Amino acid sequence: MSLAVSSPLGLNSPALGLECRGCGARFPIAAQHACFECFGPLEVFYDREALATVTREQIEAGPKNIWRYAGLLPAGQDEAQRVTLNPGFTPLVKADALAAEIGLRAPLWVKDDSANPTHSFKDRVVSVALTAAKALGFTRYACASTGNLANSVAAHAARAGAPSIVFIPYDLEPGKVVMTAVYGGDLVAIEGSYDDVNRLCSELVETDDFEDTAFVNVNVRPYYAEGSKTLGYEVAEQLGWRIPAQVVIPMASGELLTKIDKAFEELVAGGLAVAPEGGWRVFGAQSEGCNPIATALHRGSDEIVPVKPTGIAKSLNIGDPAAGIYALESVRRTGGWMDYANDDEIRDGIGLLARTTGVFAETAGGVTTAVAAKLIASGKLDPQLETVIYNTGDGLKTLDAVAGQAGPTYRVKPSLRAAREAGLVS
Amino acid sequence: MSLAVSSPLGLNSPALGLECRGCGARFPIAAQHACFECFGPLEVFYDREALATVTREQIEAGPKNIWRYAGLLPAGQDEAQRVTLNPGFTPLVKADALAAEIGLRAPLWVKDDSANPTHSFKDRVVSVALTAAKALGFTRYACASTGNLANSVAAHAARAGAPSIVFIPYDLEPGKVVMTAVYGGDLVAIEGSYDDVNRLCSELVETDDFEDTAFVNVNVRPYYAEGSKTLGYEVAEQLGWRIPAQVVIPMASGELLTKIDKAFEELVAGGLAVAPEGGWRVFGAQSEGCNPIATALHRGSDEIVPVKPTGIAKSLNIGDPAAGIYALESVRRTGGWMDYANDDEIRDGIGLLARTTGVFAETAGGVTTAVAAKLIASGKLDPQLETVIYNTGDGLKTLDAVAGQAGPTYRVKPSLRAAREAGLVS
Repeated sequence: MSLAVSSPLGLNSPALGLECRGCGARFPIAAQHACFECFGPLEVFYDREALATVTREQIEAGPKNIWRYAGLLPAGQDEAQRVTLNPGFTPLVKADALAAEIGLRAPLWVKDDSANPTHSFKDRVVSVALTAAKALGFTRYACASTGNLANSVAAHAARAGAPSIVFIPYDLEPGKVVMTAVYGGDLVAIEGSYDDVNRLCSELVETDDFEDTAFVNVNVRPYYAEGSKTLGYEVAEQLGWRIPAQVVIPMASGELLTKIDKAFEELVAGGLAVAPEGGWRVFGAQSEGCNPIATALHRGSDEIVPVKPTGIAKSLNIGDPAAGIYALESVRRTGGWMDYANDDEIRDGIGLLARTTGVFAETAGGVTTAVAAKLIASGKLDPQLETVIYNTGDGLKTLDAVAGQAGPTYRVKPSLRAAREAGLVS
Repeated sequence: MSLAVSSPLGLNSPALGLECRGCGARFPIAAQHACFECFGPLEVFYDREALATVTREQIEAGPKNIWRYAGLLPAGQDEAQRVTLNPGFTPLVKADALAAEIGLRAPLWVKDDSANPTHSFKDRVVSVALTAAKALGFTRYACASTGNLANSVAAHAARAGAPSIVFIPYDLEPGKVVMTAVYGGDLVAIEGSYDDVNRLCSELVETDDFEDTAFVNVNVRPYYAEGSKTLGYEVAEQLGWRIPAQVVIPMASGELLTKIDKAFEELVAGGLAVAPEGGWRVFGAQSEGCNPIATALHRGSDEIVPVKPTGIAKSLNIGDPAAGIYALESVRRTGGWMDYANDDEIRDGIGLLARTTGVFAETAGGVTTAVAAKLIASGKLDPQLETVIYNTGDGLKTLDAVAGQAGPTYRVKPSLRAAREAGLVS
């Protein structure tokens, strides 16, 4: 017998409750993100029997978006109750030319999540978070964001006809600011870092004025985080229900990395996908300007020392990463590694990825590409094993990062003579 | 017996040859775009028997991209021979809130082609053009572009590992310039208008140095243009194989409009889709700064007087529109109409679409939304009939157009007290 049928998240939700990642204490489904016992972060736990009923055939018969995995998610089983732009099932691009350039001699793939509706992987987590939030009775949608999340929450709210209030650091890339404001919700620029924004949102969520407000990455964070699992499910399905030997994932809070690893575990546990010989290995990528998780790994430490982020990879600039220790755990357990790239390497990574695959990534994708190349050079990534690189956002959102390097190669007057003088034609 | 099996475009191409839209003269499949008899533009003609074999079931079993319609396209029947980013099957978004705001009392849909790989409908036409070009032996890919086409050709070439050379007016939006250059091909900024760029490309294509070069919208234009038909096929399929009563389509060259109309005709002729009672009506949208086709219609004239384009809708700024007379013909034959919007109306249209649907359109989408509203206000669009609006591009590419209007609604220090003083919390 399953509790799921009576879940506050809706009929047929396989989610049973929330469990502390620290002490293991369990709580009922609610808008709660920290343990009442130890203040540790909470994670959704499921009815394992319900998960086990999900089959490949069911999934393959579903829509070409994240909701094909609804049986493995905490909310959204009822299509009519979803708050969503229907993200997901983004391209998995074979990257032979990139593999050749960075020295990988096995299949290399780029999972291109810039193809989502607001052009980042955040549409996945927002769709799951807001669908859960609606089921839990929230009527206003909010977030603390480094930009991509802001775009996604504002767009989801517009589609749903719901009010939104989005909090961002005041110095975000102009594209991300405009793309949030255009949807017409409230947009609050905070004179501080992302970590300051996040802290303020944690305070606001406790006030009476915000009791109807779901902050996707604060009070409904456990549901939000589950949305990232779809980036693991999809890659496995797109590879023919195989889990790749190596994955390289950008890290901000570190949560995305842990959830892709969790997705692979669930698929294997449920008999849905096959693990590679020797298991899969998870690799994390940060920027040099914000590398607290990678630094802890390099030091062999469990303590993540918060940093004040700098550098162009703003979407990854979380100096005090909430899931950092869990990312460390995933990487250590699977035999992976982490590294980081500086701003010049990030720019080169964007160019390299674009030239070799036709995928134009934002700075976070430049980080991941550059770090993948470094990990091969340093021998941490095995060049003989199939590898997937995750691109989580769109180059159009961080144009300034490459604007100085990427311009016309010729400028000529509109005449054949001018074209001849420029050497375009003889 | 069909000629298609021996087509230079590949095994199983249903294309039989090229036909002059002016005098009807027919020519074999080749890289030719103007009639040797009368200099009229050429269009692909098909083996009607081959087209008639295509079934809904075949299409529905195909991939979720334009290639599901390969049986109705001139090239790309062999997956291995495609030059493509696999665009298409973009969302058809129900737009109830927008309908309410503009006074439509029947179902309203937005076909959101910003979801394509390089975020405009151009990926469709480029995929078909370059696939045909490769079959015809071309090894370098080129175009004259107002921006979106440049992005798409450069990205397709990068994915295919082929050289590219792209020609643009020097004063394009920065986003479109960077997003072309980043793929690493040649990018030529021309000190002139799009019409100047186009003229120069028509001269270059005749030179020996460019004999290996396919200009997607010059020497392989007939194949390129066919790719737009997929925007008609998809809408009909997404509506359950029904053709909508009214469609509103942005016009640059006017070609897109004529091809959507042609797609509807083909679907009805082939028994694949059902026409609405009274037939479908096609509406065209231009900007006030470049409205030669709409002006001809308003004047009741068949003569399209070229203009020097101005205004923010740069992707539509073709002052001498090659397919303008055919767009007039479609609109007149179907009982539709055309109108145009000024820059303020375009900006308002972008905001209206974003707020009510969560779709962030480039200026061209603002044009279409604004013109749809005008056409209802003027009684030209019937508010009681189901309508589809085409959004052909992404707001991130024309940020400057709305940057002055779309910014933060609050700016505060990161403290609860500051939030209180700003009125965010009591």
